[in-house]
Amino acid sequence: MMVEAFDAVDIIRAKRDKGALSTEQIDWLIDAYTREYVDDAQMASLIMAIFLNGMERREIFDMTQAMIRSGERMDFSQLSKPTVDKHSTGGVGDKITLPLMPLVAAFGVAVPQLSGRGLGHTGGTLDKLESIPGWRADLSNDEIMQQLEGLGGVICAAGKGLAPADKRLYALRDVTGTVEAIPLIASSIMSKKIAEGTSALTLDVKFGSGAFMREEERARELAETMVALGTDAGVTTSALLTSMESPLGLAIGNANEVRESVEVLAGGGPSDVVELTVALAREMLASVGQPDADVEAALSDGRAMDVWRQFITAQDGDPDGALPTPNETHVVKAEADGVLTRQDALSFGIAAWRLGAGRARATDAVVHAAGIDLHAKPGDVVRAGEPLFTLSANEPARFERALEALEGAYDVAAPGTAFDALPIVRDRITA
Amino acid sequence: MMVEAFDAVDIIRAKRDKGALSTEQIDWLIDAYTREYVDDAQMASLIMAIFLNGMERREIFDMTQAMIRSGERMDFSQLSKPTVDKHSTGGVGDKITLPLMPLVAAFGVAVPQLSGRGLGHTGGTLDKLESIPGWRADLSNDEIMQQLEGLGGVICAAGKGLAPADKRLYALRDVTGTVEAIPLIASSIMSKKIAEGTSALTLDVKFGSGAFMREEERARELAETMVALGTDAGVTTSALLTSMESPLGLAIGNANEVRESVEVLAGGGPSDVVELTVALAREMLASVGQPDADVEAALSDGRAMDVWRQFITAQDGDPDGALPTPNETHVVKAEADGVLTRQDALSFGIAAWRLGAGRARATDAVVHAAGIDLHAKPGDVVRAGEPLFTLSANEPARFERALEALEGAYDVAAPGTAFDALPIVRDRITA
Repeated sequence: MMVEAFDAVDIIRAKRDKGALSTEQIDWLIDAYTREYVDDAQMASLIMAIFLNGMERREIFDMTQAMIRSGERMDFSQLSKPTVDKHSTGGVGDKITLPLMPLVAAFGVAVPQLSGRGLGHTGGTLDKLESIPGWRADLSNDEIMQQLEGLGGVICAAGKGLAPADKRLYALRDVTGTVEAIPLIASSIMSKKIAEGTSALTLDVKFGSGAFMREEERARELAETMVALGTDAGVTTSALLTSMESPLGLAIGNANEVRESVEVLAGGGPSDVVELTVALAREMLASVGQPDADVEAALSDGRAMDVWRQFITAQDGDPDGALPTPNETHVVKAEADGVLTRQDALSFGIAAWRLGAGRARATDAVVHAAGIDLHAKPGDVVRAGEPLFTLSANEPARFERALEALEGAYDVAAPGTAFDALPIVRDRITA
Repeated sequence: MMVEAFDAVDIIRAKRDKGALSTEQIDWLIDAYTREYVDDAQMASLIMAIFLNGMERREIFDMTQAMIRSGERMDFSQLSKPTVDKHSTGGVGDKITLPLMPLVAAFGVAVPQLSGRGLGHTGGTLDKLESIPGWRADLSNDEIMQQLEGLGGVICAAGKGLAPADKRLYALRDVTGTVEAIPLIASSIMSKKIAEGTSALTLDVKFGSGAFMREEERARELAETMVALGTDAGVTTSALLTSMESPLGLAIGNANEVRESVEVLAGGGPSDVVELTVALAREMLASVGQPDADVEAALSDGRAMDVWRQFITAQDGDPDGALPTPNETHVVKAEADGVLTRQDALSFGIAAWRLGAGRARATDAVVHAAGIDLHAKPGDVVRAGEPLFTLSANEPARFERALEALEGAYDVAAPGTAFDALPIVRDRITA
């Protein structure tokens, strides 16, 4: 019989009683959880204690490092260019990775976007791209390195080998009411980014109705925690604190989000999507020594679009291929003249999800043509009888439950009501 | 597919955020846990949230009732005499059930003691009685009813059918660092006692080194919670708050605790064991309408001993049978003259457990002859070279680890040091 260095119950009791866990305890715990000596029930009890009693900066660093050691690491240092990655904590209509990767790669920087699929009301980057005929998310490590060295960017599925302990822990948090624990979110995200071997990282930490963090102060705490973690691990890390009260852009879904991303790459697109894409590109380029890069020019002169087309082609997709269209649409119109003052991100996210754009279980398929197209954004003047938004689905039966989610989800105020538009990017967090 | 009334994650999040769970949520939860729709990881997360955020009196009552409904109930109302049960929260050297049941039954009262086996440093009543040749712990419900109607008392294994949800929850608490949560302890104990159908109940709630609750205030809170629960369920319930800083009596183990119990039934025995036995017997008899019963007389005139002998015989044991004796003993002597001022209950409990008197896993066997015999109690004058205590085991290899547990576990102060002996019973809690 192997003698275990620690006892899981002692570790749980220490955190329960507001103590700090030692580096050795954390190392043992993550290793023991990976080899299933510590079971899900014990880990669930511990993570609820972490949720309620918190962790110190040193404990979160140790947790992150232990999760990195639970799996393989990648190494981008052999590339001829610097690497910069971006991570968003997720939101409704968040297609930013799609225009952002080609835009930053256009400046001779390697942008590895190892992404996931969506679960719940926030969509997944890979789900969106899979709307494109032939496009392939699964690349080998060799293909990733080759594509980064060549065209400079890749968006693909994260390998199963990176931080496997995190994978199990994430699934456990999902069913045990502990998703929103800052030490766990921070170590989950950062373990994968550090294991992947990027030299710089820009975080898009969202707050508001459609974000994991409802309150700006909690999002700030998460951003500061992750920036500290990255910095402590030798990765140049900064974060933008961005608003997720309303959906980003006009498209919520999969195929329609690809369409909107291509508009941005063509120099157009909704102003909030452009604002955030440009701000993140500036931040990423500054972190690898190009603080003065003319980002807007690369959107207007077609350089970013060129990289996009090469990227889609390199991953077996057809950049000119027809995107899927829905069988059924349902238009919701304004009942009176006025000013749209509120468009609740979470409700629109849930509605799109119910239309088929998202999945309830990891094994479900998404409907690429399903989703919502907005025809007005907060601050816009609307007129009675004009369309406010269009729902798309493959079966008309989907509309009823989507419309239920949208009850009370938006406000049209009297004509002439003043509306103060706030910028999407609210703050910048650095080490 | 069955549509579930509630979602486990919503319930966990409500308690995590310091909310109160509704009666319907609690009913659903315990039922869903019993039929394994809610899994151990979800329940572990919830019980850590309950540990840290607590439960209201109404929630604990609902939890208790839901656990009762998870299994069968017994019904003592057909007996010709009133029923009174006793429950101790457990301690070191706590053999009180053995003299207490016959003593109370001698007054024409039915005393059902459905007991458990020991796990960890506190011994189990059934383990102690199984030192007696032939004695049998497993009785059918018919045998229990017959014995209660006849000689008036039974000590036997609790049926598996009572509160099965509690059984699973108790095992889960044990491995998830949530044993000491007052709402969970209270509902666990009371669900079994209420399901068993007793009309009155006396609780011995212990505090101090050898008890689950170290602090008197936590023990008081537990006692008040349980008295309220019993009262709300129509059971006449009261509690004594008793000290567990030192072992009870002079014997810690199994066979030696039976021997000490028989001494008490013969009118002798250590004064602390007699004090607690008499106090609990008075409380139990008062709760069924005999507040003036002359309890001491029934010990000195042999009436309690008569019931004891009938009880052992009824359960196939030989009241005159030889108790097992150990293969090996090790005596620890006083190094200097002085006054014994401290004898730490937990350390002596762990030492006895390491000698073989207790079990590490539920499937282990106990060594009935193993344990510790104390030759002095706090307050006693000791002389250099005289024995302080004797360890007993079946293999001499056991002594080293037992002695390790006893390092620093007792103090001998200079001769003439004053010692204030406090009573065992510190308070009485009623509805």
